[in-house]
Amino acid sequence: MTDQDNRPRDARPIGVFDSGLGGLTVVREIREKLPGEDLVYLGDTARVPYGARSSETIVRYARACGRSLARHKIKMLVVACNTVSAVALDVLRVDLDMPVLGVIEPGARAAVAATRTGRVGVIGTTSTVASGAYPRAVSSLATKADVVSIAAPLLVPLVEEGWLEGEVPTLVVERYIDALRGASVDTLVLGCTHYPMLRPVIERVARRTLGESTRVVDSAEATANELAAFLEERGLASAKQRDGALKITVTDRPQSFGAVAERFLGHSVGDVEVVDL
Amino acid sequence: MTDQDNRPRDARPIGVFDSGLGGLTVVREIREKLPGEDLVYLGDTARVPYGARSSETIVRYARACGRSLARHKIKMLVVACNTVSAVALDVLRVDLDMPVLGVIEPGARAAVAATRTGRVGVIGTTSTVASGAYPRAVSSLATKADVVSIAAPLLVPLVEEGWLEGEVPTLVVERYIDALRGASVDTLVLGCTHYPMLRPVIERVARRTLGESTRVVDSAEATANELAAFLEERGLASAKQRDGALKITVTDRPQSFGAVAERFLGHSVGDVEVVDL
Repeated sequence: MTDQDNRPRDARPIGVFDSGLGGLTVVREIREKLPGEDLVYLGDTARVPYGARSSETIVRYARACGRSLARHKIKMLVVACNTVSAVALDVLRVDLDMPVLGVIEPGARAAVAATRTGRVGVIGTTSTVASGAYPRAVSSLATKADVVSIAAPLLVPLVEEGWLEGEVPTLVVERYIDALRGASVDTLVLGCTHYPMLRPVIERVARRTLGESTRVVDSAEATANELAAFLEERGLASAKQRDGALKITVTDRPQSFGAVAERFLGHSVGDVEVVDL
Repeated sequence: MTDQDNRPRDARPIGVFDSGLGGLTVVREIREKLPGEDLVYLGDTARVPYGARSSETIVRYARACGRSLARHKIKMLVVACNTVSAVALDVLRVDLDMPVLGVIEPGARAAVAATRTGRVGVIGTTSTVASGAYPRAVSSLATKADVVSIAAPLLVPLVEEGWLEGEVPTLVVERYIDALRGASVDTLVLGCTHYPMLRPVIERVARRTLGESTRVVDSAEATANELAAFLEERGLASAKQRDGALKITVTDRPQSFGAVAERFLGHSVGDVEVVDL
């Protein structure tokens, strides 16, 4: 520890941005991995979901959200949303002039590490799939890997409705994953930060449909791991080892967001603040 | 016809506004009932869905959309969206200084006409149900009627995904309508303009769950009927008896909207124009 104690430390919070509440699965993983970091979360609940919007619109929304989080003097930004990570990371890096970490590269790297056959499946929103971001990220890491992507637009509304187990989510997941049958993938990436809430169902269906040894990769978990390594390398980690604060801001409906956030995180979240972008 | 021919006629188009594409079910009914009227549609696809937003946000969006349609020199506005009809009609009437017809009052009137027991069920979005607009509209029409409302947030994503028949929509509809079992309703209002696309499933489940004689009331159809009567009374009807034009404008993703619009309307819709609000 002596060695580490001499490194620079940075007490500023980390900004975490998502179009809605899906990014809370990333917050959950970050708090587990980095319990001393202060976090400021912004959920753009007035304009969620981004999943079916054009990339021009997503970039415009993301810039406004990035500027709102920058007012909290954050040391870096985590874009906890696959849709935004697919199209807006570079714009945000230039706009905010700080490190910006998305969820797609960590997810792609974890998938490349997990696959043995080089055939990777991805499920995500319409916009993430249309962007081709996962195939691009995977092929930049492993020239021999192939990615098959499937849009699964009903999974986000299912999570937001809280239908996480039982017949309906199972049938919906089956219908989507069935489209990967015959693609011979051995690894399935949850390419949307809402999906970890459905992980038990997705894992069960994937193993039954695609083969018992199918590996499910959670991009939220992969992102928290890369974030921890990044902060340590750059000397940006907090000196605190625990009791990191979490401040949640949204653009609409703070009460109902607070209630769902408590379900996602498993603990109370205090007052949720409304910001006007 | 001689009598009618002496009445004033108005060739200006009718504006039809929805947060997305659900309002196209209202367009379909209007075109069937009033084939000579020119229509300008605005779908606010950049910000859809409105269903879970706060009423302040909905009013703000509705005003911007109303102003956009007013630029087309419309003679009146039909708000083909239950969520907006529940909270923004009065604001729009003042803002635009023209007649504004929503979908809730026509739906409520049709329900009161249909019910024999005075017990009416309504399914709608979270925001429409929370607004209490249907109970209020029904009780202003019939003091002895009772309304039981159920939020059914997954039905809109199902329609947008095009899953209109089969196991998944049936199970989802069953789960929602099951909450009305024991409420002794004899009439069920489709309190969202997306739902007519699921009408066969909803009708089947409602009859099985709530009783064979359950009547399903479609607010889109009721609205077109009231619109026809209103135009005739006020001398605002078009002189044309057919070949009314339909112009579709959206705030995002015109291509995919055009494709879905053709599925909703059953005919080609020409170029969909993007407007910036």
